Amino acid sequence: MKDVQNEQDSRNISIDRVGVSGVSYPIVVLDPEFSEQHTVARVRMSVSLAGDTRGTHMSRFIGLLNDFQGKVTLENLEDMVDIIQESLGGEKAQLSFEFPYFIKRKAPVSRIESYSGYDVVFWSSREKDRFDFILQVRVPVQTLCPCSREIAETGAHNQRAYVDISVRMKNLVWIEEIVDIGERAASAPVFSLLKREDEKYITEFAYSNPRFVEDVAREAVLELEKDDRITWFRVQVTSQESIHNHDAFAEIERDKRI
Amino acid sequence: MKDVQNEQDSRNISIDRVGVSGVSYPIVVLDPEFSEQHTVARVRMSVSLAGDTRGTHMSRFIGLLNDFQGKVTLENLEDMVDIIQESLGGEKAQLSFEFPYFIKRKAPVSRIESYSGYDVVFWSSREKDRFDFILQVRVPVQTLCPCSREIAETGAHNQRAYVDISVRMKNLVWIEEIVDIGERAASAPVFSLLKREDEKYITEFAYSNPRFVEDVAREAVLELEKDDRITWFRVQVTSQESIHNHDAFAEIERDKRI
Amino acid sequence: MKDVQNEQDSRNISIDRVGVSGVSYPIVVLDPEFSEQHTVARVRMSVSLAGDTRGTHMSRFIGLLNDFQGKVTLENLEDMVDIIQESLGGEKAQLSFEFPYFIKRKAPVSRIESYSGYDVVFWSSREKDRFDFILQVRVPVQTLCPCSREIAETGAHNQRAYVDISVRMKNLVWIEEIVDIGERAASAPVFSLLKREDEKYITEFAYSNPRFVEDVAREAVLELEKDDRITWFRVQVTSQESIHNHDAFAEIERDKRI
Amino acid sequence: MKDVQNEQDSRNISIDRVGVSGVSYPIVVLDPEFSEQHTVARVRMSVSLAGDTRGTHMSRFIGLLNDFQGKVTLENLEDMVDIIQESLGGEKAQLSFEFPYFIKRKAPVSRIESYSGYDVVFWSSREKDRFDFILQVRVPVQTLCPCSREIAETGAHNQRAYVDISVRMKNLVWIEEIVDIGERAASAPVFSLLKREDEKYITEFAYSNPRFVEDVAREAVLELEKDDRITWFRVQVTSQESIHNHDAFAEIERDKRI
Repeated sequence: MKDVQNEQDSRNISIDRVGVSGVSYPIVVLDPEFSEQHTVARVRMSVSLAGDTRGTHMSRFIGLLNDFQGKVTLENLEDMVDIIQESLGGEKAQLSFEFPYFIKRKAPVSRIESYSGYDVVFWSSREKDRFDFILQVRVPVQTLCPCSREIAETGAHNQRAYVDISVRMKNLVWIEEIVDIGERAASAPVFSLLKREDEKYITEFAYSNPRFVEDVAREAVLELEKDDRITWFRVQVTSQESIHNHDAFAEIERDKRI
Repeated sequence: MKDVQNEQDSRNISIDRVGVSGVSYPIVVLDPEFSEQHTVARVRMSVSLAGDTRGTHMSRFIGLLNDFQGKVTLENLEDMVDIIQESLGGEKAQLSFEFPYFIKRKAPVSRIESYSGYDVVFWSSREKDRFDFILQVRVPVQTLCPCSREIAETGAHNQRAYVDISVRMKNLVWIEEIVDIGERAASAPVFSLLKREDEKYITEFAYSNPRFVEDVAREAVLELEKDDRITWFRVQVTSQESIHNHDAFAEIERDKRI
Repeated sequence: MKDVQNEQDSRNISIDRVGVSGVSYPIVVLDPEFSEQHTVARVRMSVSLAGDTRGTHMSRFIGLLNDFQGKVTLENLEDMVDIIQESLGGEKAQLSFEFPYFIKRKAPVSRIESYSGYDVVFWSSREKDRFDFILQVRVPVQTLCPCSREIAETGAHNQRAYVDISVRMKNLVWIEEIVDIGERAASAPVFSLLKREDEKYITEFAYSNPRFVEDVAREAVLELEKDDRITWFRVQVTSQESIHNHDAFAEIERDKRI
Repeated sequence: MKDVQNEQDSRNISIDRVGVSGVSYPIVVLDPEFSEQHTVARVRMSVSLAGDTRGTHMSRFIGLLNDFQGKVTLENLEDMVDIIQESLGGEKAQLSFEFPYFIKRKAPVSRIESYSGYDVVFWSSREKDRFDFILQVRVPVQTLCPCSREIAETGAHNQRAYVDISVRMKNLVWIEEIVDIGERAASAPVFSLLKREDEKYITEFAYSNPRFVEDVAREAVLELEKDDRITWFRVQVTSQESIHNHDAFAEIERDKRI
């Protein structure tokens, strides 16, 4: 059968990224507590394409997922982008996995345990011989407004917020560590399961710890700056303001390598 | 050209609803303040189909939208479902428009004005000669937790919540009136634009007015019950809990006609 | 500490459903091929509340998930709604899990294997002593338009479509069986991984098998009607028309018990 | 009342962007056919913040929207980012409006008219004295697979696809012109309303015009390259493959200024 993708292309326009997206796939990731964790990823895989070739061979992307049987470690990611690059012949290859990751958490007072879910992205790429990896973690938290607390006689508006932290690293940083940074930066952490004594504690803790989105971003930056394993980071805080029907947000990106 | 849709169908299976969905269309709705309001709707239109006919004529749905030039009033809705029923020959016809509707609001203290947007659904149907209409309005509000307020020395967790109110009516009820019911049922309303004096007021007001999702649903029901124009209603409250990464919800539906 | 939820409520308005939604949780479901499958669910849990009680105890819902360690079988579902009903004292309890479920599939000609993901919902409820369970499966397929094929000299427009099948059953029906019904009803199945010979086969197969959304719904109904294990079903077909920027849909619901 | 936002901040961490997002607002944009068009936008507004200031004044963003009464022209955009920069004192200001835009289209054979909706983004920013503007338009189209057409005896798989085109310009380019570029690049345009003769035409036209996502991206690039008003562009094509449950995509970005 004719291989239309392999045809010569006379338009001479190279393509930055061509591939598949929205692929749902079961994966296994490393978990420091239970050694591995089964979850489900949304996968995006692409390669660059030279100006003289008509199309890429999309089925090889999915074949690769099968070959690795969904084992997604940092080592495997590097192997996978290598194989994409080689088998599809592009200068650049990109591969990302988005998945929910669960951590067993203890409530602050009752110590009762439950799972908290975090949306994680493993993003990796290879350009010529340079491998790049970004870990992104979405940390749900509470923000309590310093202005509202200051000006109101009683109470202070607070709300659920999300701290999205992305890092490039030279030594391994666990998802759990990023979650901790995001939580410490906020007014309070959130939990799946709280008893009344925990709710009292969290309410009072948040009230004693008011934070604007600006504060949350800066507190996270303070920790990310001093961690030598991290070479680049981006912090995005989005707070679902409870006095508005829109969100407040703050973003800071820093590259320590320059 | 052959009309495949008009073919006889030997399977003898009638279809409850067949039509188009996800149609994006500019519409004009009535606005008590400015006489009319331009907005954009997501439209869903369907008809029932007898067991002996292969298919419906989908293009007639879109043709109808054009004929009415996007004017969506209660009167026009009744005309439209009549025309769907007649032109497509079904026993039942259904038509719904989902759209954002804006109301100019004054902040509680500064009286500064801004627009608040509400997601509204006009759902209408005709079965034989019976016309049915449901108005649904999503009202964003704040809930402040009575338990948290009671047990904590300082503060109380609060958050954005949504009150979805659906009503059947025998006399016209405006979108603005449903918004008012939803807001009064909650701990506090939300606004697009607030000055510092307004933020102080809202914070203190919510603190003095703690409400579980159960309370919000019941307070809305109290008002909906006593309004004689309303013959049926459903209230759904969803609160984006600021101490959890999941929501709390409550639902009540009542039919006064039975 | 005061139990605010346990307060008497003087409004005397009973609540149909009160609980938690949007809970992300790791679960394990039965898999006929591999005995069990790890996946991630979105959970919704609720109970009815009598008119004289102020609030339900939301934390018990999450506690229950922990107690069952995420094992979601038909038997466990019945136990769980029983426990919700008992521990929270409501007449009615509802519990649903939405999750991606993966099936290993072989391409039609090359027989190459890959995983296909299906969005599944387990919905269960208990009202007094009656347990109810609905299995819902979203089956992605291809539809090829019979009208387009008939009137055009060459080709026929086709597109991705989704067949959502919900069933109540008196004897166990596997997710895999529902997937098969949905796929047979359509113009062609879809696959994660296809070689060129498979793509040729699927293209020609779909062209020889044109189906309107009406046809897909009716073909599924024919199979669901004759399966005696199934006592009630609903079929919803949504086709992402490739000649329009909106969808076509068809819905049929039948209760064999009446 | 104390102005907490104006406090000195000792952490000395400047913030790249701080502001509001998810603001729903009615706007009016220019329309070459009808002079203006009413629609509804999702607005995102931000400013950079110096390291020594605690917070920005979020309410000024919404106040600005009110002051301009939702009139969103290229000229107004420049004024708005100027005002944000001045009133909030940041070096950088950003402002974006996402909205559906409607164009009246004629079917190819019957010439019957209907509205097609396109998701548009106006993105603008100011850094010191440099104003920047990007117009982004999502164009829904049909792609028909060249490989499938070549290897199959009958038919060819096709599907809905989206061409997202973003441009920077030195002279005005209308939304309508970007839509035309996106449609010409694909196998066929899509329409809201088609008669049978139009469906025949579109089906045959697409079959005679097979395009991979790679082809669509390159065809769009050919046109964007030769248009001297455009100084930078990005093309992203996403095709909802009808033989898979995932998408194929291709992306090309070019800066003519370097």
